[in-house]
Amino acid sequence: MPTNRQIVLDKRPTGEAEAGNFRLVTSETPALSEGQVLVRHRFLSLDPYMRGRMNEGKSYAQPQPLGEVMIGGTVGEVVESRSPKFTAGDQVVGMGGWQEFSVVDAGQPGALRKVDDSRVPLSHYLGAVGMPGVTAWYGLNRIIEPQAGRTVTVSAASGAVGSAVGVLAKARGCRAVGIAGGAQKCRYVVEELGFDACIDYREHGDAGSLSRALKQACPDGIDGHFENVGGMVLDAVLLRANAFARVAVCGMIAGYDGQPIPLTYPQLILTNRMRVEGFIVSEHMEVWPQALAELGELVGSGRFRPRESVAEGLEAAPEAFLGMLRGRNFGKQLVRIS
Amino acid sequence: MPTNRQIVLDKRPTGEAEAGNFRLVTSETPALSEGQVLVRHRFLSLDPYMRGRMNEGKSYAQPQPLGEVMIGGTVGEVVESRSPKFTAGDQVVGMGGWQEFSVVDAGQPGALRKVDDSRVPLSHYLGAVGMPGVTAWYGLNRIIEPQAGRTVTVSAASGAVGSAVGVLAKARGCRAVGIAGGAQKCRYVVEELGFDACIDYREHGDAGSLSRALKQACPDGIDGHFENVGGMVLDAVLLRANAFARVAVCGMIAGYDGQPIPLTYPQLILTNRMRVEGFIVSEHMEVWPQALAELGELVGSGRFRPRESVAEGLEAAPEAFLGMLRGRNFGKQLVRIS
Repeated sequence: MPTNRQIVLDKRPTGEAEAGNFRLVTSETPALSEGQVLVRHRFLSLDPYMRGRMNEGKSYAQPQPLGEVMIGGTVGEVVESRSPKFTAGDQVVGMGGWQEFSVVDAGQPGALRKVDDSRVPLSHYLGAVGMPGVTAWYGLNRIIEPQAGRTVTVSAASGAVGSAVGVLAKARGCRAVGIAGGAQKCRYVVEELGFDACIDYREHGDAGSLSRALKQACPDGIDGHFENVGGMVLDAVLLRANAFARVAVCGMIAGYDGQPIPLTYPQLILTNRMRVEGFIVSEHMEVWPQALAELGELVGSGRFRPRESVAEGLEAAPEAFLGMLRGRNFGKQLVRIS
Repeated sequence: MPTNRQIVLDKRPTGEAEAGNFRLVTSETPALSEGQVLVRHRFLSLDPYMRGRMNEGKSYAQPQPLGEVMIGGTVGEVVESRSPKFTAGDQVVGMGGWQEFSVVDAGQPGALRKVDDSRVPLSHYLGAVGMPGVTAWYGLNRIIEPQAGRTVTVSAASGAVGSAVGVLAKARGCRAVGIAGGAQKCRYVVEELGFDACIDYREHGDAGSLSRALKQACPDGIDGHFENVGGMVLDAVLLRANAFARVAVCGMIAGYDGQPIPLTYPQLILTNRMRVEGFIVSEHMEVWPQALAELGELVGSGRFRPRESVAEGLEAAPEAFLGMLRGRNFGKQLVRIS
């Protein structure tokens, strides 16, 4: 069996995550038991949720155990199969983790999914046609429930989730306004993704200033907001929210290192009769088929061209992950494994 | 026609509301036109929402106009009628305002409602069997949607809304835990209203301390919370919230004078996949008949004995109102008008 390089969580972060939290190890892949398949990973997905798993504290998910391979979504190719469900050469999506190969019990429901739409580049099954895309779909359709003509805003708009929120909102006839970091990302959001406007939050020192920019970009106020960031961005959005506005809370990356990110004016939830709701897409598996079908069609038809940042080689994963947490990626952050 | 004493809003508050914001005036009640009735008020309701109306700023409702009679719910007796719908002697609930008499267009939908359940004291139609009761009913049943065996908390638990929340939650088989100010109110909440526990927030200097008390009173965590206060109370509750907990935001009296009341840990909305939703009961008229029927039965059968603080005479209304904002009332705050 082939040698397998793996990245494990070596130490939990105190404050900011850093490269020293991770360790590269080498092992042999074990021989397959009946029902198992061996997958060679092509791409590893890097996602903000992983930062939460690195902490010990109570969160919605089990913490990543120390000394074990970091959790993560992967696409790859079956190289050996002892399951009737898969044959060598199948392209598959799974949760293979930060390593070059994974051994998967093919009978476990949802563990491995075959993909074969030749119009969709394999890596997009980790982004727009994968977990980030379904995350966008759920928050938009099940929490924000936007109506045509209404205004939807989204933070981290050039990212894997945010870009899908905007494209889906436009497909529903909404005005889509992004918030992103830097002029280049904002240009991409408007010119390539088709948002109506995008605000560079780096040009704004406080929520009041950002809120004035939102007022300009959202002349009819904000009816729905998809939150990936928190802090100043959420404060600014609430100041522009309309009556009955909905906020889907998907991430609060601004607080992932333990920074305080208070919500300054919670009374706006009352005066605007808002609904603010947090969610995790893995708890809503029932929407995945419908969401993936719509997202696959948007990408397959070329109407949605997601952008990717690809780091080369497993050993590049930690720095690419840390860069993503600091907003250095542009679009979906991936690692090419082989 | 009789002389009518009225209290008008004379000046808007800057910071805390004060007696000088109000002015007592005297006028003649006008002669009735066709379709109108003249009502002599027996009781005036004082409610926290009135504080919001005194401000000029954008809120969910029109500000109370300066120089006009303060808005407010009233119960009273028809003394003269030029409407076929009412006859002298009818007992009626309406929005008569801070005055001794009101002239009402009886044809206007919802303007005046006849009440005649002899088991229900007239004043309770302004409390448990009126707007505050329906407010409790809506927030509990339509937002919190509690299941038997789950834990529901409510702040301002001895008040008109809070007491009904607890009684309704108990009727649904929930554990009901109140938060109130002072040992006497807490005793009433447990011993007379039948809550399972009540915490005196005055014994706690910060959200951490209050949260530890909530942990003791809610050993299985908090599944639903009805918020009337905001600030430290809401922070403490969020720290004890279970996955999928719901918060109905009905009031944030802690911030009514303009104090900052930031929500310290909004990330808990995400990690607990919570829903936090604000509402105003007047926007949900469709639930009133069902809610009033249930509340009327609870009160009429003696299973719910709401407590009242009654100030004597219209001229006592401003001080009674200001006292209520400071938590000096005990139960529903009323003014006996005649």
